Amino acid sequence: DFIHALENDVKPAFGTSNEAIERFYSTGIMTWGQPLQDLLDDGNLFIQQAKDGEIQRGLVSILLEGSPNAGKTALAAKLALESDFPFVKLCSPEDMVGFTETAKCMQIRKVFDDAYKSTQSCILIDDVEGLLEYGDIGARYSNVVLQALRVLLKKEPPPGKKLLILCTTSRRDVLEQMKLCASFTTVLHVPNLTKPEHLTTVLLNLSENGNSCFTRDEISRISKNISSKRLSVGIKKLLAFIDWTRQMDPKARSSKFLAKLEEEMALL
Amino acid sequence: DFIHALENDVKPAFGTSNEAIERFYSTGIMTWGQPLQDLLDDGNLFIQQAKDGEIQRGLVSILLEGSPNAGKTALAAKLALESDFPFVKLCSPEDMVGFTETAKCMQIRKVFDDAYKSTQSCILIDDVEGLLEYGDIGARYSNVVLQALRVLLKKEPPPGKKLLILCTTSRRDVLEQMKLCASFTTVLHVPNLTKPEHLTTVLLNLSENGNSCFTRDEISRISKNISSKRLSVGIKKLLAFIDWTRQMDPKARSSKFLAKLEEEMALL
Amino acid sequence: DFIHALENDVKPAFGTSNEAIERFYSTGIMTWGQPLQDLLDDGNLFIQQAKDGEIQRGLVSILLEGSPNAGKTALAAKLALESDFPFVKLCSPEDMVGFTETAKCMQIRKVFDDAYKSTQSCILIDDVEGLLEYGDIGARYSNVVLQALRVLLKKEPPPGKKLLILCTTSRRDVLEQMKLCASFTTVLHVPNLTKPEHLTTVLLNLSENGNSCFTRDEISRISKNISSKRLSVGIKKLLAFIDWTRQMDPKARSSKFLAKLEEEMALL
Amino acid sequence: DFIHALENDVKPAFGTSNEAIERFYSTGIMTWGQPLQDLLDDGNLFIQQAKDGEIQRGLVSILLEGSPNAGKTALAAKLALESDFPFVKLCSPEDMVGFTETAKCMQIRKVFDDAYKSTQSCILIDDVEGLLEYGDIGARYSNVVLQALRVLLKKEPPPGKKLLILCTTSRRDVLEQMKLCASFTTVLHVPNLTKPEHLTTVLLNLSENGNSCFTRDEISRISKNISSKRLSVGIKKLLAFIDWTRQMDPKARSSKFLAKLEEEMALL
Amino acid sequence: DFIHALENDVKPAFGTSNEAIERFYSTGIMTWGQPLQDLLDDGNLFIQQAKDGEIQRGLVSILLEGSPNAGKTALAAKLALESDFPFVKLCSPEDMVGFTETAKCMQIRKVFDDAYKSTQSCILIDDVEGLLEYGDIGARYSNVVLQALRVLLKKEPPPGKKLLILCTTSRRDVLEQMKLCASFTTVLHVPNLTKPEHLTTVLLNLSENGNSCFTRDEISRISKNISSKRLSVGIKKLLAFIDWTRQMDPKARSSKFLAKLEEEMALL
Amino acid sequence: DFIHALENDVKPAFGTSNEAIERFYSTGIMTWGQPLQDLLDDGNLFIQQAKDGEIQRGLVSILLEGSPNAGKTALAAKLALESDFPFVKLCSPEDMVGFTETAKCMQIRKVFDDAYKSTQSCILIDDVEGLLEYGDIGARYSNVVLQALRVLLKKEPPPGKKLLILCTTSRRDVLEQMKLCASFTTVLHVPNLTKPEHLTTVLLNLSENGNSCFTRDEISRISKNISSKRLSVGIKKLLAFIDWTRQMDPKARSSKFLAKLEEEMALL
Ligand SMILES: Nc1ncnc2c1ncn2[C@@H]1O[C@H](COP(=O)(O)OP(=O)(O)OP(=O)(O)O)[C@@H](O)[C@H]1O
Ligand SMILES: Nc1ncnc2c1ncn2[C@@H]1O[C@H](COP(=O)(O)OP(=O)(O)OP(=O)(O)O)[C@@H](O)[C@H]1O
Ligand SMILES: Nc1ncnc2c1ncn2[C@@H]1O[C@H](COP(=O)(O)OP(=O)(O)OP(=O)(O)O)[C@@H](O)[C@H]1O
Ligand SMILES: Nc1ncnc2c1ncn2[C@@H]1O[C@H](COP(=O)(O)OP(=O)(O)OP(=O)(O)O)[C@@H](O)[C@H]1O
Ligand SMILES: Nc1ncnc2c1ncn2[C@@H]1O[C@H](COP(=O)(O)OP(=O)(O)OP(=O)(O)O)[C@@H](O)[C@H]1O
Ligand SMILES: Nc1ncnc2c1ncn2[C@@H]1O[C@H](COP(=O)(O)OP(=O)(O)OP(=O)(O)O)[C@@H](O)[C@H]1O
Ligand SMILES: [Mg+2]
Ligand SMILES: [Mg+2]
Ligand SMILES: [Mg+2]
Ligand SMILES: [Mg+2]
Ligand SMILES: [Mg+2]
Ligand SMILES: [Mg+2]
Repeated sequence: DFIHALENDVKPAFGTSNEAIERFYSTGIMTWGQPLQDLLDDGNLFIQQAKDGEIQRGLVSILLEGSPNAGKTALAAKLALESDFPFVKLCSPEDMVGFTETAKCMQIRKVFDDAYKSTQSCILIDDVEGLLEYGDIGARYSNVVLQALRVLLKKEPPPGKKLLILCTTSRRDVLEQMKLCASFTTVLHVPNLTKPEHLTTVLLNLSENGNSCFTRDEISRISKNISSKRLSVGIKKLLAFIDWTRQMDPKARSSKFLAKLEEEMALL
Repeated sequence: DFIHALENDVKPAFGTSNEAIERFYSTGIMTWGQPLQDLLDDGNLFIQQAKDGEIQRGLVSILLEGSPNAGKTALAAKLALESDFPFVKLCSPEDMVGFTETAKCMQIRKVFDDAYKSTQSCILIDDVEGLLEYGDIGARYSNVVLQALRVLLKKEPPPGKKLLILCTTSRRDVLEQMKLCASFTTVLHVPNLTKPEHLTTVLLNLSENGNSCFTRDEISRISKNISSKRLSVGIKKLLAFIDWTRQMDPKARSSKFLAKLEEEMALL
Repeated sequence: DFIHALENDVKPAFGTSNEAIERFYSTGIMTWGQPLQDLLDDGNLFIQQAKDGEIQRGLVSILLEGSPNAGKTALAAKLALESDFPFVKLCSPEDMVGFTETAKCMQIRKVFDDAYKSTQSCILIDDVEGLLEYGDIGARYSNVVLQALRVLLKKEPPPGKKLLILCTTSRRDVLEQMKLCASFTTVLHVPNLTKPEHLTTVLLNLSENGNSCFTRDEISRISKNISSKRLSVGIKKLLAFIDWTRQMDPKARSSKFLAKLEEEMALL
Repeated sequence: DFIHALENDVKPAFGTSNEAIERFYSTGIMTWGQPLQDLLDDGNLFIQQAKDGEIQRGLVSILLEGSPNAGKTALAAKLALESDFPFVKLCSPEDMVGFTETAKCMQIRKVFDDAYKSTQSCILIDDVEGLLEYGDIGARYSNVVLQALRVLLKKEPPPGKKLLILCTTSRRDVLEQMKLCASFTTVLHVPNLTKPEHLTTVLLNLSENGNSCFTRDEISRISKNISSKRLSVGIKKLLAFIDWTRQMDPKARSSKFLAKLEEEMALL
Repeated sequence: DFIHALENDVKPAFGTSNEAIERFYSTGIMTWGQPLQDLLDDGNLFIQQAKDGEIQRGLVSILLEGSPNAGKTALAAKLALESDFPFVKLCSPEDMVGFTETAKCMQIRKVFDDAYKSTQSCILIDDVEGLLEYGDIGARYSNVVLQALRVLLKKEPPPGKKLLILCTTSRRDVLEQMKLCASFTTVLHVPNLTKPEHLTTVLLNLSENGNSCFTRDEISRISKNISSKRLSVGIKKLLAFIDWTRQMDPKARSSKFLAKLEEEMALL
Repeated sequence: DFIHALENDVKPAFGTSNEAIERFYSTGIMTWGQPLQDLLDDGNLFIQQAKDGEIQRGLVSILLEGSPNAGKTALAAKLALESDFPFVKLCSPEDMVGFTETAKCMQIRKVFDDAYKSTQSCILIDDVEGLLEYGDIGARYSNVVLQALRVLLKKEPPPGKKLLILCTTSRRDVLEQMKLCASFTTVLHVPNLTKPEHLTTVLLNLSENGNSCFTRDEISRISKNISSKRLSVGIKKLLAFIDWTRQMDPKARSSKFLAKLEEEMALL
């Protein structure tokens, strides 16, 4: 029956260790510019508030939203682990492939029930639209999961307990329509790289660490080339493009790199 | 089978003590202005009527509606507990995360069935749109729960018994469309703070109790600043903003507080 | 299996005694004016016809439709009990909260199957749109129940048996769309109070019986006040307003009563 | 499992004797005019064809369509019984209240499977739109039943066997949309009474048999009254109006009868 | 469980012998004109190709599409049996009345799995839109069956095996919308009779065989009569009309026959 | 229960050997022109990248999209097998006919779970829109499968492991609407034959290998004939046309071949 299923059916198999969460930014977080720094400062301020023992309310919930490949998951993982909360728990659609919506819901509920037992807990909910099973054609989604999140994102932990919730999404538009954004304490934007110097910082940084294929000359040529264009690219995509150019003939690679940026609409 | 499930499957685990209900306003109810006072007076008048032994009809049902964060739940909890009804029962989506709509329905029904057994009962139904599982995209909802509420909100308790029902919602529009508002004895509006003096009252009150971070000087500066603007903010949001400014450098905090109010569209 | 479920699963727990039906008009039926009298006369004529042994057809079905609070249920109950049919059976959504549509359907079917066994039976189906689980958003309803009603409202009882069906609804519009109105022998309108003298009759009547709070002076003042306005109020709502004014200061009550009527759109 | 269910789950409880079918026209079939006579002639011609042993095709299917109360079921029953087919089987939603669509489908299939075993069979399917569970709001229906009918109405009986199918509907429009009309050998229209003489024939006929309440004088007055108006009324409705006037004061009854005809839109 | 059900639940009860398929054209195939002859030639050419051992691809699939009553099923059956493929299997909604969509799907799958085991197989899928459970109102269909057909119509048999698939449909429009037509090797049109000489050929042929009721004189009168009109009638409908005229008075029958053709929109 | 089902219910019956994958291009891959060569070069470059041990990210996913019959499956199979990845796994709707969406989802998940265990794996997902059960009428699809693919196509394999994913689709438009294209590392277009020389290359190649029926003369006549027309035909369709002409009279075949190309809209 129902209560029984709730307590027994969802195995602890889904427990997540801090190492699992660390893996989300195993290639590191590069501080490529001011917008990123501002985001990290804001995030940390809210985390501080979540731990402040003098404040009676025990709940702080943060939505990290940005375009695909912006680095949302890596940043959320970093903030979660650096919060120094003793209990960090992950909720990700990656770990629930093929679950029914009820099973997903139970899993989410279990994570929260566990968190309510600790004095200080942090929950990382990655890819909220994935959890909600949002499908663009026909605007399908799991109302069961939506209703659970809607309530759990606002529910105070028991008296004296502290709860920090970090969520990521690349579909702020969808969450707005679901009126879910209003359930968060704050919504923070994860920025794309938009200025030539952001790009140069990344390329130089990699080159210094011996990871990138571009020489300093190539980097300044690339930099000059894009100086008059509008740029918008996510860090994950950018790093993937750089990986890709490693397979190429050194002569062609910088122009192919620029062409790829244009093809992907990252340069306009 | 059906009858059996009804009686046995839903465990008394969901019983709510008065302490649980008190927690909804554990940080207190601040009387920040006349609109709030009027609401409390009205509410109490209806509660008096619900207890009046000379009236034959045994049912009074009140819908408290207001924008998110207006303080609806806290006020409903306060009215319920101060009604001095010996039996106060809570129905909240917070306690039914992951329930099927049938389980929700059975739970609601059980609360009413229990209430019918007492001479004087009070039922607090928090977040009606949450119970109804209303999802904005595609206007989804649980028709099973709607039909149950539709009937139970109008059903007279057995002869000689008294029943007070207190509901809260931030989606009056949705309940109107469902023609559910008409099922209540009365609909009361929970107001936002809309005048500078409402805000000042709150800030001074906190400062006097040593809870707030703003000095009297800052308070009068804030007050002057907003005197010409239109304000509309819920008490819960306001208290959260104040908490947030506590983490900040005293120099910046009053202007950051005002900026935050504007960002959240609370000031226009 | 199916047949078994049909015969065994629905317990006689739902049997209704005449006292249960009487309770629907335990506060009495006040004859406040001619429209009401006409309705009662018409209703009684049809009941007479339903009992007429010389007519071969054994079925008379009546739909009582009117706005919410018009007194539909009370009048249907009164007609049913005064019909002097030995077997009166109630079908009401109030007794089926949380039932699946199949269970509702089986319950309805059982009531009819039982009725077919008596020589003279009367079935009272209260709140037809509730039985049909009509939800305005998305126009949802139980097609299973609709199909059952559609057939049972037209099905002749066995040869020599008489069946009187009394239904109530406040959603004639919905039943028309479902083409269900055409299945009744006749549709009777339950009127609201629409003339000043209707209202005065009620107030005087209550005052004479020592139940109301208004003095004869107040009554004539109220009467004068509304003489030029258009009135439309259901008897249940009106009696509730009067109850409500009992909690008030005698000086304010008559004007508050009129204000409430206006607020509820009953006066235009 | 499936096959098993098909063969065992649907009990022979639904067998129909000829007496059951006779009851559909137990009050008799009155020949009120030429349109009705034409229909009966046509119907009989098709039945003759269905029995003609020299024709190789073994299937004749007839759809009797007309407005509600036109007398469709009574006429179909009469044609079925007078066909002198040894095996007559009834399929009616009246006998399947509360069945799932699968159970309905199985029941229909069983009727056909039985029919295929006899040399000459007749199947009467009453109220096809009821079997299809057609609900006007949202145009709902049982596609499972539709697909079954679509196939069974066209399927030839085994070699050497004869099958006559008689169906009734008051929703030809719906069946057309479902492209189901094209599956019948022929579609016959069951007419309403449309001329004054049709009405007079019925009234005189009843009066001669001592069943009606109207005198010959009243009848000629009624006849004169409607001579210039357009009439369209089904025989069942007409007989019900006449029954109804029996409860009245003889002076008022003929004008009340005419008023009722107008109220029901039967006279324009 | 799933795999088990697949292998055990669908009984060989659905096996079809060649006699069953022969029955589809037991009344014979009359060659009434050139369009029909062209179709048969085309069909035979494709069948030859399906058997050609020098071609490596092992799959030929043909869709026979035409209006209702055009003779599609009879022609498909004839082509299938005359193909001389040792294994001919029938898939028809007639044999699956009341099946769930999953059961239908399993049945179809089983037919193909069996076919893959023979060196040369022919599968006849009659009435594809029936298998797909297409319902016009609301454009309902079984996506489960669609997906199965979509894949199976394109799947190559195992190396060295040959598979000929013959399908019939009267809803080419629907299959186009489902993008299913593109899955066939070829789509062949089954023509209606459209010229006076087509009709005359049929009537003379029947008359010669002593099956028809029309004399040579009547036939030439009919022929003259329609010479200036546009004709379009399916062979099955035409044969049914002729059967029908057999019940009539010889004097009236030729004009009634023409009238019926017009009524059915076959003559314009 | 869930976990159990996941691990035990999906049998290894679906394992695919390399021979099974080879069969997709058993008739060979003909290099008919530069567009095809470019595609193969691009594909191989990405495969190289997927194996590059110096790159930390372990995932490369490629979508091969093109019109029906373009040769997508054959090319994907060839790339997969020539990648020299020790573990190549196939996911195809052909092997899942009649599976529930949950079973499909579990099957897909199992393939990925297996792949994560090998150091280097390649997964071939054929006919993605088939897996998604896309039905054009009503735009139906399996959201369960969509959500699984959405996550699995982006999920990194465990640290140190490499995963290459090759998908094919002929409905890029649908995948774009589902925002699934953005989940791939790259999207490669599988071209149709569009220039006369592409066609000539194929015909000559077959003629040299003694497989085709056209003589060199016929080939040059065909080539001349289409030189001024726009051509667009998939290799699979083209090879099928050529097979078809083998059944014909040599005189007619080249013009019939051209006519067929036009009929199929391949020549404009
Ligand atoms: N400044 C940075 N911010 C975020 N990620 C960074 C940064 N610098 C390097 N990275 C690396 O970039 C990658 C970001 O990928 P991540 O999965 O977080 O993106 P995402 O926005 O969540 O993508 P998706 O939209 O697919 O969910 C990680 O591998 C991370 O280690
Ligand atoms: N005058 C007041 N009215 C209501 N709440 C007050 C008041 N003064 C202080 N509070 C505090 O403000 C908070 C109001 O939060 P509450 O949950 O009731 O808001 P809500 O309108 O129900 O929010 P939501 O829309 O999220 O349901 C409580 O913590 C309560 O103690
Ligand atoms: N003339 C009257 N007609 C009907 N009810 C009356 C009359 N006079 C007094 N009453 C009282 O008014 C009340 C009518 O309530 P009732 O439940 O019948 O209304 P209703 O129209 O069914 O309401 P709803 O729309 O909520 O179903 C009853 O308590 C009844 O005793
Ligand atoms: N000429 C007639 N044709 C049909 N019915 C007649 C005729 N004369 C008398 N009757 C009587 O009229 C009644 C016709 O009712 P019947 O149920 O057949 O109508 P119906 O069209 O099927 O109604 P519904 O639309 O409700 O299904 C029967 O009681 C029948 O005995
Ligand atoms: N030339 C012909 N082509 C087809 N059928 C013919 C021909 N001549 C005679 N017939 C007879 O006509 C009938 C055709 O009926 P058939 O069921 O094949 O039509 P259909 O197009 O499949 O109809 P439906 O649209 O109902 O499926 C068969 O009885 C067949 O024996
Ligand atoms: N250059 C080529 N590219 C692809 N296939 C080729 C080529 N040359 C010959 N072939 C053959 O053409 C056929 C291509 O068929 P394939 O099933 O791959 O097409 P497809 O695009 O996947 O079709 P569908 O749209 O039906 O899925 C195979 O039999 C293959 O052996
Ligand atoms: Mg992410
Ligand atoms: Mg609240
Ligand atoms: Mg009522
Ligand atoms: Mg009928
Ligand atoms: Mg056919
Ligand atoms: Mg393919």
